[in-house]
Amino acid sequence: MLATVLHAPGDVRFEDVAEPTILKPTDAIIKLSATCICGSDLWPYRGLQPVESPQHMGHEYCGVVVEVGSDVKTVKPGQFVVGSFATSDNTCPHCRHGFQSSCEHREFMSGAQAPYARVPNADGTLVATAEMPAEDLLPSLLAASDVLGTGWFAADAARVQPGSTVAVVGDGAVGLMGVLSAKQMGAERIIAMSRHKARQELALEYGATHIVTERGEAGVVRIRELTGNVGADSVLECVGTNESMLQAINCARPGGSVGFVGVPHGVELAGEFLFFSQKNLLGGPAPVRRFLPHLIDLVLGRKINPGKVFDLELPLADVAEGYRAMDERRAIKTLLRV
Amino acid sequence: MLATVLHAPGDVRFEDVAEPTILKPTDAIIKLSATCICGSDLWPYRGLQPVESPQHMGHEYCGVVVEVGSDVKTVKPGQFVVGSFATSDNTCPHCRHGFQSSCEHREFMSGAQAPYARVPNADGTLVATAEMPAEDLLPSLLAASDVLGTGWFAADAARVQPGSTVAVVGDGAVGLMGVLSAKQMGAERIIAMSRHKARQELALEYGATHIVTERGEAGVVRIRELTGNVGADSVLECVGTNESMLQAINCARPGGSVGFVGVPHGVELAGEFLFFSQKNLLGGPAPVRRFLPHLIDLVLGRKINPGKVFDLELPLADVAEGYRAMDERRAIKTLLRV
Repeated sequence: MLATVLHAPGDVRFEDVAEPTILKPTDAIIKLSATCICGSDLWPYRGLQPVESPQHMGHEYCGVVVEVGSDVKTVKPGQFVVGSFATSDNTCPHCRHGFQSSCEHREFMSGAQAPYARVPNADGTLVATAEMPAEDLLPSLLAASDVLGTGWFAADAARVQPGSTVAVVGDGAVGLMGVLSAKQMGAERIIAMSRHKARQELALEYGATHIVTERGEAGVVRIRELTGNVGADSVLECVGTNESMLQAINCARPGGSVGFVGVPHGVELAGEFLFFSQKNLLGGPAPVRRFLPHLIDLVLGRKINPGKVFDLELPLADVAEGYRAMDERRAIKTLLRV
Repeated sequence: MLATVLHAPGDVRFEDVAEPTILKPTDAIIKLSATCICGSDLWPYRGLQPVESPQHMGHEYCGVVVEVGSDVKTVKPGQFVVGSFATSDNTCPHCRHGFQSSCEHREFMSGAQAPYARVPNADGTLVATAEMPAEDLLPSLLAASDVLGTGWFAADAARVQPGSTVAVVGDGAVGLMGVLSAKQMGAERIIAMSRHKARQELALEYGATHIVTERGEAGVVRIRELTGNVGADSVLECVGTNESMLQAINCARPGGSVGFVGVPHGVELAGEFLFFSQKNLLGGPAPVRRFLPHLIDLVLGRKINPGKVFDLELPLADVAEGYRAMDERRAIKTLLRV
């Protein structure tokens, strides 16, 4: 089959690779209904993360099961499923505590920017819908598998409550999903930190009540001004740089919470700074599986429209252009039609 | 009056200083009933924190109000009071959120290793008892003002719940109070990490169910063994070194919580490490005021005996020997009789 392989920074190829097969009895093979490019795919694309050998790209997926291993009990061929980028058995102690992304049997997905993909830990990872979803819901169901689930986790980790004042650092797809999630959780004020018009507009549509264009220390000052010099109850860090992390921590009030989901690159935090900041910190790869059933329900019930975050849609064969568009910030997020 | 002044590392003097006076209308002056030496006093004593000019030492206190400023409404001369090392107005937004140690008007206490001390923000800081407490309860009431309040915050920040498995890193007075606090909060298993016999015994008396003598990576391995390779739900970090902080984080299970109250010295945390650890982190100077009424009730009702952590009692005049004994680890904590 033809699929996406990253050979070196900037060198994405759509080329012939072997079709995936069942490697373990707990695997499933799915036929992708749609797939997409993640902000985190840009780290190696931009050379900010080493590319030691050709990588089969893609970890966001929804589609139809075509084959299952002999141990798979709960999903079967023909079902439409959504899964998470971090596969999980959903039975180990970490899974039972709701941290499926730290599952004892976790394997990270790869190779989903392709017509077919292998999903390890199929029973504990894939959530099947009762029937085949409407075509127009595919982008939103795809979003649930990572970008929405990750934004939702950021809001959950930042303990957004009804009435909360929330700041969102980062206006990429995850940040925008963080805005949507905070809104769903009942936040009263949602401050999106963004300086890009199209992203500001989408943030407002998703529930942002304020836009702050300043960054770094100036951004912190603006959040303080907007909160009576108190700081936000909850801050969602959706970037992963040292500057954005410090900005996020400093935007929260003492005793407030920071949910950080941007994969950190070059972040170093001093103990004394954390100590005297007195902020709750929780982050990491999102345990999307914990939230998936609820998120799928919200999408199927047309209560949310996370799929709108895809502002570029391309055939899978044009995946390289999808990377370029996101790298150059011409697109927030690229959906790939299979 | 004669009081405690640190002139240089290792140079504690009991010498003549001016008696404290009301400086602000929100101040109170108290006559100390008892005072003590804090583990954190050892940082400058050991030269690990600069001593730029002579410092009036002491921030843990209970005693009788002798004078109040003109704005003080809720405490009055003659009352027995306990306060926190971090004074607070108890009305600002941070106080209302329960983070009085980040009060907008916070002033850290000093000069309490003395017969008299000035307490800023008296109304929001001092908690008065209904009557003069029994003499034998003074050590426990004194403990409430910092070491118990700090151990309690560590357990609260680490979200100890009924049934929790808790690990306590550090067997100093705060760590031992953390054990006591976790027990009060209903922890099922409390693993005290200690290699000192007297401290192990006190930890067991306070509710520890297991003792682990290993430290660092070996300590982490032991906690994993004791928890079915899962990790602890809650970890209390009560030391403040880089090693102890890493040990604490690594002892917690994914999604578990670390409450860190040891004042950090040389702690640096990499963003990627925190991200992939997936642990809740909260620490800082304890908001003791939040807990004081409850802690005082527990002491007055003789439900807890935190005063037992004082294993050396000296007259205030012998304060220098008190520092030496703690520095040489001959004493866990020194109570000074005024």
